[in-house]
Amino acid sequence: MAKNINNPESKNINIFLDNASTTRVDDRVYIEMLPYFKDYYGNPSSIHSFGEIPAEKLEQSRESCAVLIGGAAEEIYFTSCGTESNNMALWGIARAYREKGNHIITSAVEHYSILNPLKEMQKEGWEVTILPVDAYGKVDPRDVKKAIKSSTVLVSIMHANNEIGTIQDIREVSGITKEAGIFLHSDGVATAGIIPVDVKSLGVDSYSFSSQQMYGPKGAAALYLKKGIKIRPLILGGTQERGRRAGTENIPSIIGFGKACRIAKEEINDNSVQIQALRDRLIKGVNSSIENIKLNGHPTQRLPGNVHMSFEYIEGESIILLLNSEGIAAASGSSCASHALKTSHVLLSIKLSPAIANGSILFSIGKYNTEAEIEKVISVLPGIAEKLRKMSPLCNLGK
Amino acid sequence: MAKNINNPESKNINIFLDNASTTRVDDRVYIEMLPYFKDYYGNPSSIHSFGEIPAEKLEQSRESCAVLIGGAAEEIYFTSCGTESNNMALWGIARAYREKGNHIITSAVEHYSILNPLKEMQKEGWEVTILPVDAYGKVDPRDVKKAIKSSTVLVSIMHANNEIGTIQDIREVSGITKEAGIFLHSDGVATAGIIPVDVKSLGVDSYSFSSQQMYGPKGAAALYLKKGIKIRPLILGGTQERGRRAGTENIPSIIGFGKACRIAKEEINDNSVQIQALRDRLIKGVNSSIENIKLNGHPTQRLPGNVHMSFEYIEGESIILLLNSEGIAAASGSSCASHALKTSHVLLSIKLSPAIANGSILFSIGKYNTEAEIEKVISVLPGIAEKLRKMSPLCNLGK
Repeated sequence: MAKNINNPESKNINIFLDNASTTRVDDRVYIEMLPYFKDYYGNPSSIHSFGEIPAEKLEQSRESCAVLIGGAAEEIYFTSCGTESNNMALWGIARAYREKGNHIITSAVEHYSILNPLKEMQKEGWEVTILPVDAYGKVDPRDVKKAIKSSTVLVSIMHANNEIGTIQDIREVSGITKEAGIFLHSDGVATAGIIPVDVKSLGVDSYSFSSQQMYGPKGAAALYLKKGIKIRPLILGGTQERGRRAGTENIPSIIGFGKACRIAKEEINDNSVQIQALRDRLIKGVNSSIENIKLNGHPTQRLPGNVHMSFEYIEGESIILLLNSEGIAAASGSSCASHALKTSHVLLSIKLSPAIANGSILFSIGKYNTEAEIEKVISVLPGIAEKLRKMSPLCNLGK
Repeated sequence: MAKNINNPESKNINIFLDNASTTRVDDRVYIEMLPYFKDYYGNPSSIHSFGEIPAEKLEQSRESCAVLIGGAAEEIYFTSCGTESNNMALWGIARAYREKGNHIITSAVEHYSILNPLKEMQKEGWEVTILPVDAYGKVDPRDVKKAIKSSTVLVSIMHANNEIGTIQDIREVSGITKEAGIFLHSDGVATAGIIPVDVKSLGVDSYSFSSQQMYGPKGAAALYLKKGIKIRPLILGGTQERGRRAGTENIPSIIGFGKACRIAKEEINDNSVQIQALRDRLIKGVNSSIENIKLNGHPTQRLPGNVHMSFEYIEGESIILLLNSEGIAAASGSSCASHALKTSHVLLSIKLSPAIANGSILFSIGKYNTEAEIEKVISVLPGIAEKLRKMSPLCNLGK
């Protein structure tokens, strides 16, 4: 646990409920990585013994990553982060099939690592259709069908939303894209390692997933790319990753990622049950003690650890700061937007008013969280809400 | 040291002389990184305490990287590897200034992470001039001047060559590019942390450098970009790295990189003296005991640890394999090309015949190498050369 050395008020309680932004590295992953910094530090491209073990472990990790999501090892390309995987898929597939057309379809609730590359691609002549979502943040597959034109090359719909936790009907979308003969990418950074994923049954052509969201280290992620699909590399140079992603492989992180995938494969169901129970307890506890709050996202089709709530009459930032002084870490909006202090595009897409949207916080529960931690949140949150509402000029409650 | 578990013949000697391809992580760097996997694992973008220390250390590393090369912290952008830094510089600067022209100048001896993106850019309408080099691998700055046209936007000349170790006259090149009002990028992956670098006195506009080449971990590198110069990001998404490189920062690797830069700044001169003495001993020892060999690269303007030699009548690969069975790791050609088994473009550029080029090996000496290790190489190499020459159909020596 982080020592709150900058925060003497924290009473040394450290409850990390921001697992959607990143996760603590699993002890078993950590141990697996350590020998590759100072002992087996060779470059896997080299032909001497120092490169042998790293090269073998690289392929073992590729296999483990493939197994986790139901793909084949040769369909896995390692990258440096989920954002890079998403950029690689969009630019890479679209450009490789440019002769087929210039139209891409996506949704309004995608992560910025999808929306911002697409914005850039628009400057270079790509046409982008951004589909709306319903009040739960779900894309209607019929909207995908309607949006397809003869010039459509690619559809990119995330598997689950990183903010409000809503899980999309990817299988229905892939039925439509397959029929239309176009490609489907899905951003699985919030899902892989958290809920069971099978790319074959989802029917996606490419899929991004990341180590640091599943108790692996930062610095490693992957793009699954279905066999036979062409891609133009984003990063060119040496022949690593079969010429599709150049640069010396980040061996320790990739080995950690592989171990994290093996652990997830084994333990995902048990973890999911435990995490979901904590989530339901948190939702129930908060709902019964605080008025004028709203759970965002889909009531059932949601990530097991996601509790995204809007508090009327309060700034989410203020809640985060007061929770923090109690040693509880949660997020306001998406982690990428947190420092930007602007209203989350996801919350505006589900038609929350800016005032309500800005009163939102995300507790994302992970496998290291305990019942006692959740009870602690339930016990302090009503007081925080009351305190902030008393200060709010917008609020007449409790006055 | 790597345990040669796959190689029982190695007599457990493990001499790593492939420091140009990657380096062992320094113990002090390793210790510095460790707390950021399981203790201070927060996302630096978050606003709670778990993000605070990572965010502070991220900026401390940025400052350390800047100090190493004489830049300012706000001129440093972290990336995942040297290859990414080079791709980012080329695509990013050229596209940001597309209205100025479409012509780029580079040299024939650049790393593939320069040459291959430029090849791709040619497909998109960029014109690329590849300058020849002399027999030592040096670019003549006058050739740069002659190649400049009204449409030239960018010149990219590496600081030192990763294979043959030749150091270019970057300062003279920058005099020319400044006068012409065009940008100069330099790939400093082989130099930063190994020899003193000052980007201001070199006069470059951008400069790539990498952690894993200076006893830091894999997974972190940087692009220095002079203040005021525009760049279009390669990887888009969140607002990390001031919007110029999206994706959650690889905090442990970046912290390790920062520490590696601080150590290098402190110890670079002493290391360089020690490494250069070992290099000169190796060259002298091999020269005095083996006939028909040639030292490639510049006799004086070369990296302190670089010993690149061609052995007539022998395949470099065979030398590497026999050295490996003695527990000695060296490289044939560049590390990126090693597995590709094709003749190095660098060696062809300095006009070695393919037969001689293919008989080349690179010993790259680092700070962990010892005199005893060098003596061991000097003692075994003549026997290896003799054995291989006896087997060679091309060779009449010793028959």
